[in-house]
Amino acid sequence: MSKKILVLPGDGIGPEITAEAVKVLDACRAAGLDAELEEGLVGGAGYDAEGHPLPESTLAKAKAADAILLGAVGGPKWDTLEDLTKRPEKGLLGLRKHLNLFANLRPALLYPQLAEASTLKPEVVSGLDIMIVRELTGGIYFGQPRGIETRDGERVGYNTYVYSESEIERIGRVAFEMAQKRGGKLCSVDKANVLEVTILWREVMNRLAPEYPDVELSHMYVDNAAMQLVRAPKQFDVVVTGNMFGDILSDAAAMLTGSIGMLPSASLNERQQGMYEPCHGSAPDIAGQGLANPLATILSVAMMLRYSLGESALAERIERAVGQVLDAGLRTADIAYPGTRQVSTAEMGDAVVAAF
Amino acid sequence: MSKKILVLPGDGIGPEITAEAVKVLDACRAAGLDAELEEGLVGGAGYDAEGHPLPESTLAKAKAADAILLGAVGGPKWDTLEDLTKRPEKGLLGLRKHLNLFANLRPALLYPQLAEASTLKPEVVSGLDIMIVRELTGGIYFGQPRGIETRDGERVGYNTYVYSESEIERIGRVAFEMAQKRGGKLCSVDKANVLEVTILWREVMNRLAPEYPDVELSHMYVDNAAMQLVRAPKQFDVVVTGNMFGDILSDAAAMLTGSIGMLPSASLNERQQGMYEPCHGSAPDIAGQGLANPLATILSVAMMLRYSLGESALAERIERAVGQVLDAGLRTADIAYPGTRQVSTAEMGDAVVAAF
Ligand SMILES: CC(C)[C@H](C(=O)O)[C@@H](O)C(=O)O
Ligand SMILES: CC(C)[C@H](C(=O)O)[C@@H](O)C(=O)O
Repeated sequence: MSKKILVLPGDGIGPEITAEAVKVLDACRAAGLDAELEEGLVGGAGYDAEGHPLPESTLAKAKAADAILLGAVGGPKWDTLEDLTKRPEKGLLGLRKHLNLFANLRPALLYPQLAEASTLKPEVVSGLDIMIVRELTGGIYFGQPRGIETRDGERVGYNTYVYSESEIERIGRVAFEMAQKRGGKLCSVDKANVLEVTILWREVMNRLAPEYPDVELSHMYVDNAAMQLVRAPKQFDVVVTGNMFGDILSDAAAMLTGSIGMLPSASLNERQQGMYEPCHGSAPDIAGQGLANPLATILSVAMMLRYSLGESALAERIERAVGQVLDAGLRTADIAYPGTRQVSTAEMGDAVVAAF
Repeated sequence: MSKKILVLPGDGIGPEITAEAVKVLDACRAAGLDAELEEGLVGGAGYDAEGHPLPESTLAKAKAADAILLGAVGGPKWDTLEDLTKRPEKGLLGLRKHLNLFANLRPALLYPQLAEASTLKPEVVSGLDIMIVRELTGGIYFGQPRGIETRDGERVGYNTYVYSESEIERIGRVAFEMAQKRGGKLCSVDKANVLEVTILWREVMNRLAPEYPDVELSHMYVDNAAMQLVRAPKQFDVVVTGNMFGDILSDAAAMLTGSIGMLPSASLNERQQGMYEPCHGSAPDIAGQGLANPLATILSVAMMLRYSLGESALAERIERAVGQVLDAGLRTADIAYPGTRQVSTAEMGDAVVAAF
């Protein structure tokens, strides 16, 4: 049966970059991928058209899809919305929660062709290849109770950082399996010297470890992890952590490569249904100018083929095509430097299709 | 009246590095500082001697002191203690809470003599001078309720991230005043797109801003802040944030300098009583070998003189002496490289005293 892919362009540069990724998806279909594409509204675009960042129609399409390709959401236009439940980000958070996309895979991979882009010394980052596995539907992002209320005559804000054993176990298994397929090393990041919730986290990771004897499990406090990412990032293979720490560490790790315009991500549920999106944001300042880098979104399509559509061979073809385009010296503005050829968003997409 | 300084050597390299800092304090007393020194037990040392990481006698001395110099706490010896309330870290957290040391000042300063030590490219970090102001007695570190309990047949761990307006306001004022004395820029870090507690945080910072018209206030999400610290750290002057985000970001910022053995910190309460300690940990692996760098602890003495003892001139003399010793090429093992002269912990302390 034909697979269903939902494309959610979103806001800012979202429409431009997803358009290029769709070109690549079309090339895959021409090469034999049996898939139907549909479009939907999300984020600010959803709010503007239907009054909600995650319109009912979009959620229904998302539930029916095998995979979702998301551009990016948000922008200054909606930052002043009084009703926080209507902010673009809530569209993203709603999709994660409703589809139960608990496993967020965020690779931080340094492309040798772009080694110069890093702010770190080449010897520190060359060959960098980290996979961050972030829990995405629990923790402090969704914990109850939460709110702002008056206590003893003044306002107090509060959120709840909470994980159950089963939530920890299921993300733990994803991470252990990822480590088995990669370098066999898993580092679990917590703050077990201060937070009870992460004492439980560490305990569950330790309990799972004997089931994966080929994986070497270690533990690190989050402050030390932030430090070690700067000091010696190549010590990491797979990192597993909760929603909030994962948000922070995956962005830091991505920036180590210096080319966040290159980094894809996947968010999966238990039946491998997934949402795929670039790690970067909606960059409203450069939207509509053909300056955006579509490669992170194109590489998100590769992740989609691998994790949700069972088409690893096509995934590899995309990744190889991206490598070739970089080898040929083509660069969007964010990764251009003297001696390379600067191309537009669409030219980059076309070049990848041509190399596919 | 003579000032009271409590010295808490703690664990690991703590005793070695505080011994050198005490030499410098003695030099200050010879130069006119009217102060009495006392010693106390904390951390693992407190647990071993009195069964508690913060013995009653230590707490009493701490309350009576004008300033506390702390070495470092913790080590593998106590990591397996079943009773978490007895772990060395609890000694530190207890001192912070009992003395109400809500304002943690963590400078990330790159010494030009040590520019090579950074893993970042010189142009990215040269001249780096960030002051992180971290709230230290609230937030998720101390929030209630917290614990691990059974719900619906499985265990659940939870912590509470909570701040009141008055807590936010008092740390905000410290940060605004710090920005006034420095470059006039304050960046408040939160996660206001997801966490209600930080929506309140942002609101209070905005409310304070008009009282400090000479300070330019900006806001940044914590994930972006982690990224910007790697991408372009020199954009920051003063950063203010909560306890947990501050823990993570200050460690990342410290590591940007490549020489965490150089970085002091101060933790102050409303009456400028303070605890001073190096940013680094207890490094049990190198304890007792004369390898530890005492400069972070010595520079913590300088902060103590400045913030708690009203002796800025002596503080500057210490800082100048440290600069001279570095200029002369003296280095402990952690910051040594070819062409410099490697010295022991004690030799480094003696050299600072000689240059004082
Ligand atoms: C936009 C925001 C809600 C989101 C998050 O915090 O998860 C983003 O930072 C991300 O990492 O995907
Ligand atoms: C030891 C630990 C409890 C402490 C903290 O998390 O605050 C440390 O990391 C610090 O930053 O001083």
